[in-house]
Amino acid sequence: MRANRLREMWAAGRKANNCFLGIPSSISAETIAHQGWDSVTIDMQHAAVDDAMAYQMLVAVSTTDTVPTVRVPWNDPGVIMRVLDYGAYGVMCPTIDTAEDCARFVGAVRYAPAGYRSVGPFRASLYAGRDYLAKSNETVLAIAQIETKPGLENVEAIAQVPGLDMLYIGPSDLGLALGRGAMPDQTDPIVVDAIDRILAAAHKAGVRAGIYCASVDYSLAMMKKGFDLVTVANDRQLLAQGAALLAKMK
Amino acid sequence: MRANRLREMWAAGRKANNCFLGIPSSISAETIAHQGWDSVTIDMQHAAVDDAMAYQMLVAVSTTDTVPTVRVPWNDPGVIMRVLDYGAYGVMCPTIDTAEDCARFVGAVRYAPAGYRSVGPFRASLYAGRDYLAKSNETVLAIAQIETKPGLENVEAIAQVPGLDMLYIGPSDLGLALGRGAMPDQTDPIVVDAIDRILAAAHKAGVRAGIYCASVDYSLAMMKKGFDLVTVANDRQLLAQGAALLAKMK
Amino acid sequence: MRANRLREMWAAGRKANNCFLGIPSSISAETIAHQGWDSVTIDMQHAAVDDAMAYQMLVAVSTTDTVPTVRVPWNDPGVIMRVLDYGAYGVMCPTIDTAEDCARFVGAVRYAPAGYRSVGPFRASLYAGRDYLAKSNETVLAIAQIETKPGLENVEAIAQVPGLDMLYIGPSDLGLALGRGAMPDQTDPIVVDAIDRILAAAHKAGVRAGIYCASVDYSLAMMKKGFDLVTVANDRQLLAQGAALLAKMK
Amino acid sequence: MRANRLREMWAAGRKANNCFLGIPSSISAETIAHQGWDSVTIDMQHAAVDDAMAYQMLVAVSTTDTVPTVRVPWNDPGVIMRVLDYGAYGVMCPTIDTAEDCARFVGAVRYAPAGYRSVGPFRASLYAGRDYLAKSNETVLAIAQIETKPGLENVEAIAQVPGLDMLYIGPSDLGLALGRGAMPDQTDPIVVDAIDRILAAAHKAGVRAGIYCASVDYSLAMMKKGFDLVTVANDRQLLAQGAALLAKMK
Amino acid sequence: MRANRLREMWAAGRKANNCFLGIPSSISAETIAHQGWDSVTIDMQHAAVDDAMAYQMLVAVSTTDTVPTVRVPWNDPGVIMRVLDYGAYGVMCPTIDTAEDCARFVGAVRYAPAGYRSVGPFRASLYAGRDYLAKSNETVLAIAQIETKPGLENVEAIAQVPGLDMLYIGPSDLGLALGRGAMPDQTDPIVVDAIDRILAAAHKAGVRAGIYCASVDYSLAMMKKGFDLVTVANDRQLLAQGAALLAKMK
Amino acid sequence: MRANRLREMWAAGRKANNCFLGIPSSISAETIAHQGWDSVTIDMQHAAVDDAMAYQMLVAVSTTDTVPTVRVPWNDPGVIMRVLDYGAYGVMCPTIDTAEDCARFVGAVRYAPAGYRSVGPFRASLYAGRDYLAKSNETVLAIAQIETKPGLENVEAIAQVPGLDMLYIGPSDLGLALGRGAMPDQTDPIVVDAIDRILAAAHKAGVRAGIYCASVDYSLAMMKKGFDLVTVANDRQLLAQGAALLAKMK
Repeated sequence: MRANRLREMWAAGRKANNCFLGIPSSISAETIAHQGWDSVTIDMQHAAVDDAMAYQMLVAVSTTDTVPTVRVPWNDPGVIMRVLDYGAYGVMCPTIDTAEDCARFVGAVRYAPAGYRSVGPFRASLYAGRDYLAKSNETVLAIAQIETKPGLENVEAIAQVPGLDMLYIGPSDLGLALGRGAMPDQTDPIVVDAIDRILAAAHKAGVRAGIYCASVDYSLAMMKKGFDLVTVANDRQLLAQGAALLAKMK
Repeated sequence: MRANRLREMWAAGRKANNCFLGIPSSISAETIAHQGWDSVTIDMQHAAVDDAMAYQMLVAVSTTDTVPTVRVPWNDPGVIMRVLDYGAYGVMCPTIDTAEDCARFVGAVRYAPAGYRSVGPFRASLYAGRDYLAKSNETVLAIAQIETKPGLENVEAIAQVPGLDMLYIGPSDLGLALGRGAMPDQTDPIVVDAIDRILAAAHKAGVRAGIYCASVDYSLAMMKKGFDLVTVANDRQLLAQGAALLAKMK
Repeated sequence: MRANRLREMWAAGRKANNCFLGIPSSISAETIAHQGWDSVTIDMQHAAVDDAMAYQMLVAVSTTDTVPTVRVPWNDPGVIMRVLDYGAYGVMCPTIDTAEDCARFVGAVRYAPAGYRSVGPFRASLYAGRDYLAKSNETVLAIAQIETKPGLENVEAIAQVPGLDMLYIGPSDLGLALGRGAMPDQTDPIVVDAIDRILAAAHKAGVRAGIYCASVDYSLAMMKKGFDLVTVANDRQLLAQGAALLAKMK
Repeated sequence: MRANRLREMWAAGRKANNCFLGIPSSISAETIAHQGWDSVTIDMQHAAVDDAMAYQMLVAVSTTDTVPTVRVPWNDPGVIMRVLDYGAYGVMCPTIDTAEDCARFVGAVRYAPAGYRSVGPFRASLYAGRDYLAKSNETVLAIAQIETKPGLENVEAIAQVPGLDMLYIGPSDLGLALGRGAMPDQTDPIVVDAIDRILAAAHKAGVRAGIYCASVDYSLAMMKKGFDLVTVANDRQLLAQGAALLAKMK
Repeated sequence: MRANRLREMWAAGRKANNCFLGIPSSISAETIAHQGWDSVTIDMQHAAVDDAMAYQMLVAVSTTDTVPTVRVPWNDPGVIMRVLDYGAYGVMCPTIDTAEDCARFVGAVRYAPAGYRSVGPFRASLYAGRDYLAKSNETVLAIAQIETKPGLENVEAIAQVPGLDMLYIGPSDLGLALGRGAMPDQTDPIVVDAIDRILAAAHKAGVRAGIYCASVDYSLAMMKKGFDLVTVANDRQLLAQGAALLAKMK
Repeated sequence: MRANRLREMWAAGRKANNCFLGIPSSISAETIAHQGWDSVTIDMQHAAVDDAMAYQMLVAVSTTDTVPTVRVPWNDPGVIMRVLDYGAYGVMCPTIDTAEDCARFVGAVRYAPAGYRSVGPFRASLYAGRDYLAKSNETVLAIAQIETKPGLENVEAIAQVPGLDMLYIGPSDLGLALGRGAMPDQTDPIVVDAIDRILAAAHKAGVRAGIYCASVDYSLAMMKKGFDLVTVANDRQLLAQGAALLAKMK
């Protein structure tokens, strides 16, 4: 089975970067995957990326070595299993509030006896190889987003759910949940404390930690702080910022 | 009828900027149109933008004041008339080699007796208003691309085709046609001479001149040189450049 | 933030009309929105309108002042949050049976601390303005459908769920649930009693009331009876009736 | 091979009605086809109906006995042959100006030796039957639109092109071409004369005549005048008119 | 209402065959439906068939007498009700573990008072007839998949849920769940015992039994064993096997 | 630039096999490309494969070593240039009747000075490499179909058009054109003579020869006869034949 490069990088002690893909098109996905990112996350939650488009984008990313992951809109086994069948090598689930939420999510990512994922990896086995069924449980990543008050309160229990691979921080939601600003690149002490707590909980439980960032400096700081995967950019904002800058030119 | 802001700007002695849209998605088009560009050109020639996608992108741009234009894949009346019916306020046609080519193109943009465009502006009249049929001939723009050897040789005749509004330079094709490099932002004297000849032919015939650029400096220089519309960026390259830069960060 | 015209009309003591959109196309949506309706409801429940099509239709309606709302297929936070991110100014949820159902639904429509909607209004902030995050909780509408036996029995409790904006009656389901006919424009006393009870519950709780109708006379009667929003037509039936009439002509 | 009901009706001395389909959706096409129309024309010229959508609409109409025809955007053999392969039982081509235009069009509709249509009726043979190849030349309809000045001047020659089945009048374009209004249901004597000339030319050459109308009265008058096929309505206008009427109700 | 041919066949003591459709295209669905299958199952679980594609495929199958059924991705009332509105004559739900799961599923398939399906069969009534609402509860099929350990343990209770029509075995998941191989055409005694138990539970409860197979011999054996519906093939594997065989030819 | 494996195979004295792809889906294309075919031809002429779908299928095939080629619907520079920009490594053009037709076709495949292809290989350069512009003229294949009477009469002149790479025989059209049956695997002496003449013309002019077949035996015979590329199968017929066989099983 094709190895998961993120797991290889982490095993080698390296940090990984990540780009969110929210523009619903195959060509933007393939273009970005060709720039050398370690991983991309196709965003089905806060973007106009539906099921059919996520499929196309997964195929496009498959023409490169970049690891394709998907963020699903909600903790729904139907969609989680579908994107895995499509060949996603990781699934990120938003709004994990409890260990039960997390177990339900992780179970959808793993075949029995580790979970309850249904068998039928029709495209995943083209992308990954014919031994997909045997090795997928140890290859694909289950990534839980911590971004609510209950999620924060239960973070240690969530981190210990068997089969989970990463806690990932959504700083806008987390900030809002804590009565602070809904923004990335948080510096408010209350939010920073929460971030530190999540990072600690992840590493204590032996799982990875990731965080969404919106600037290079903050991204580098997060890597230094210990995050294993750092989202440095998202395609729509890259485009908006570049276009806004140039629109002034004349 | 909704006025064509490009015509208004030019009448007021102003230059217009332009962004090419080659990412086939509604959200990238709407996002860019919100950044304040004078005009956008939805590219059906060198992009995966098909008929149905061009339609969606035109609707998305319609939520702003940015002038929506379309570059068609070829000098084909069927597609030219369709994008006009969809509400394009300008059509750019590639590879105009002769005055006959140009007349065929312009005729497809104009209703009788000025041309042979067929009547049925089903969405254009929603976007522009109920008097579309009466005023469209003087509102929408017919833009001919000059980018081949015969196009250059016939440029003065092309410029004088009645009903044409602009000559637009594709510098990559023009450079290649002249045995020079296929690239934007040309500085090779032979290509620069050709650019100057096209600009002069346009203005002598009383039509506008436009050019595709790939950097801010070159864009500003072209405005200074006299071009009325300057393409400063295209969405795919904005995205690729931004993503390439950040992929290195870690 | 762009105001919600429905809220403005109601504040001014006016009734609003509404058209259901079940034809999955951008042009039918844009055409209808141009006819002067106060609001439209893009129907993802009983129509072939999927996620990608709802998005296109929302963009199309955005070119007018008509208020765009969406009926989701089910009480599922993933889809509710998505259509809000797409720019819907109201979400209607079918089959609300209990106050718990209603709280789950309303929570998905509101950001913390009022609810648990996740942050990422990528298109909504283009449509509504940059202050969307701050003002969306008081702008977008949460509309619960009452159309089952338990829904009717719990209607007073449902109406009092904080953050709810309207009770909306689906008369076909309600009629069937009460052992009467599954049809709009109900006159059966048992169903009329239920309608009156729902209307009273809404107004007593200080929220709006809406109802689906299928004729002009019944619509006007419902407005007179006190309904704040009345669905007068749906696009598919308009089309079918017009086409059926004319098919006989010869 | 499934018979062409239009040919059967005409052979029996009956007139046929017709509805234009310009809303790009399968459900509107299937709904209208169920109302009892003799034929529908899927409009790829003045509507947002692209190739993939025309295909879906043809399948939807195939669930009924209504005869499915398609108007192509232009006299382009590629698209003409494709919609025939998709199962269209008639093709209407706009803007036929000369007998040469007409021969090029008709040739694309007929297999050798009558024409140059390429063999590959992959869906047509599902819809029509396994003997499609043998009988299609005598079954499917080739319909030329007369709507320009040269078209009118050459109408007698056009009508006599072997293999042509019908002349069809586009009154808006015809009116504009003659310096009159661009509208259906023409009563201007100059346009009426032209209509009469086209009708006479068709019948003298032994082919059918058709016309686009926008009201019941005019449609009935045209049938009485001798037209064999009369377009009574188009879906978008049915919808717009119905929606405009009801939007006023409150 | 159009009868359900599967019910008719069973009433006549006949077995039915079935083909799974996982290639997301209208033409493959229509092609296969024309080959004489008793029924097809459009697979939204382990295939790239989304909501819009399932709709198109249902329309395509409607041009034949083959009974169209759909397997939904998960026990989600929203999608179950949608495919029924689209005209599916049967719904298969994966991973039914308990009688409660089954009741939730069956309830979504039946109108009140038998269930809680919402009224709005916009296309189903075109396909089936105007009396759809009255007769659909006794016509469309509710099919529960048994393929997990709890599903097996609870199979007798599941089979007795009122309104259920069939238990259907997913042998890959069932095998994996029982610690055996994840494969069709099971011969392992433990899995065969489970299959026998499910078959017995179905027939004892008076419902039908179905099973997914991957070879002709196994299919015939299952019919002989008593299964009422046997899936003999799926389109993607038919294609892959044929293509693999021929790729070697040279 | 990524080499064209077909050219490499021919240079090594080997024959290549080929599969036609007419099912409009990414997954069928990717599945077939994984079976080890030397090349595939995405068919935009006699299949419901439009521009957007051809794009997706090209991306899907790009995940393998199979050489992706496209048959366009007609000799139209717009679509020829588009599929090349999408990354096709060969273009097949139907119905080449004269050397002029052929020159127009080949010119659209080659950049100046060899032809008039416009510059903008936005995806081709992702697939092929950054030196695409410099090397594409000698890499991508221009394939002319000979399948009409004039095509046969002019075959020697057509074969000598500079830049052409292959003559490809469409036996159904060729048979029909010669007054014989419209079928593959021709054995009629008149058609066989024509096939031999085309093969000889190709090889005499130093270009390759290809032919469409429908059985293994005929394919092998054609390879033995000297054809360089032999189409052994098409996806739709593979599927139909497999499905027809199994539908009988019970």
